Amino acid sequence: MEFKEAMKQRRAVNFFDPTKDVTDAQIKQIIETAALAPSGFNLQPWRVIILRDKEKKETLRKVAMNQPKITEAPVVLIILADREGWKKGNTEFEKDFVESVKAGIMKQEQYDWFCNATNSLYGATAERQLAFACKNTGFFAMSLMLAAKDAGLDSHPMDGFDIDGVRKAFNISDQYWIPMLIAIGHFDKTKTLLPPKWRKSYDEILINF
Amino acid sequence: MEFKEAMKQRRAVNFFDPTKDVTDAQIKQIIETAALAPSGFNLQPWRVIILRDKEKKETLRKVAMNQPKITEAPVVLIILADREGWKKGNTEFEKDFVESVKAGIMKQEQYDWFCNATNSLYGATAERQLAFACKNTGFFAMSLMLAAKDAGLDSHPMDGFDIDGVRKAFNISDQYWIPMLIAIGHFDKTKTLLPPKWRKSYDEILINF
Repeated sequence: MEFKEAMKQRRAVNFFDPTKDVTDAQIKQIIETAALAPSGFNLQPWRVIILRDKEKKETLRKVAMNQPKITEAPVVLIILADREGWKKGNTEFEKDFVESVKAGIMKQEQYDWFCNATNSLYGATAERQLAFACKNTGFFAMSLMLAAKDAGLDSHPMDGFDIDGVRKAFNISDQYWIPMLIAIGHFDKTKTLLPPKWRKSYDEILINF
Repeated sequence: MEFKEAMKQRRAVNFFDPTKDVTDAQIKQIIETAALAPSGFNLQPWRVIILRDKEKKETLRKVAMNQPKITEAPVVLIILADREGWKKGNTEFEKDFVESVKAGIMKQEQYDWFCNATNSLYGATAERQLAFACKNTGFFAMSLMLAAKDAGLDSHPMDGFDIDGVRKAFNISDQYWIPMLIAIGHFDKTKTLLPPKWRKSYDEILINF
């Protein structure tokens, strides 16, 4: 699908056809495509919990304002943003350094420099840690919603959930912020899709101080 | 361009051809395409400062680790994420309500409900305000980088800057987090583009606790 078509046709779909499944291969493909998103120092601070199981989706629905789409959609993703993705010892951080050395982008003796650079840019304050996690995971999640559309699937990003409730139900530690849930499936064509919502104009987006 | 090609061909380009300009029409088009990105309650908490002027880019470069691409790229965008985009009185918040009523999605008497809903989801803590701003602006910025590629342009997202320095130089208040700068232009073909960097595999992205 053309990029612009994917941007236009991607809509937050409220009703999923419960008779139409999504294959594991489709989920793998959209996650792999989304993983091409850029990130600060290529640290990729995103993780995904995939829910397919009926009981697990019911557990999630209970802590997500009882939204029917959580159990109606064949797949629901809990998107996680790693607030420690910049930190010495973190899995992605260490792999990123090893891979950068392998690729000739960094030298082994730059390890301390690398630790200090990511620490000062992303780790220096709790604010920076959260901003680092959420912005980069935003890149990943946007790419994932477009990849779903490109694969002929529909999605719905959800903010309506109790963060602490989801943490407890799925044993998610404070290391991860939970920026969103994404339901994936097929739009229920017996329902009506609302017209696209308003968007800010170019002039409303630009600002100067 | 096909969506998947845009994902693959979008690369963070370090060297811009200083002889090749980007038109105002191109910038408008990529910002308008990016504006189709979704956001929580459609609040669109993103803003953009466009820098073209040589002196302004030099001012930015001084507070951005002296990165040559800031003055070499014809256009540099300062991306802003509105931490108050969920708040009663905020421009986008008020317009969103008016437009939702016009579209029949909300009723006038739901104004208080709307204020409370966005306040509890996005405004309840400083953490939530920042996460709201950065995640949604991440959707917008990812879309913008893809839209640039689709328009035949190259981009470079930058985190290497002094947030407080940029605030001071461009009079940006604390209302806005500054998640990134994006240089836009044409790759300098006399330089070599490095091979794509490593990405986490599907299995490295999935997690369960």
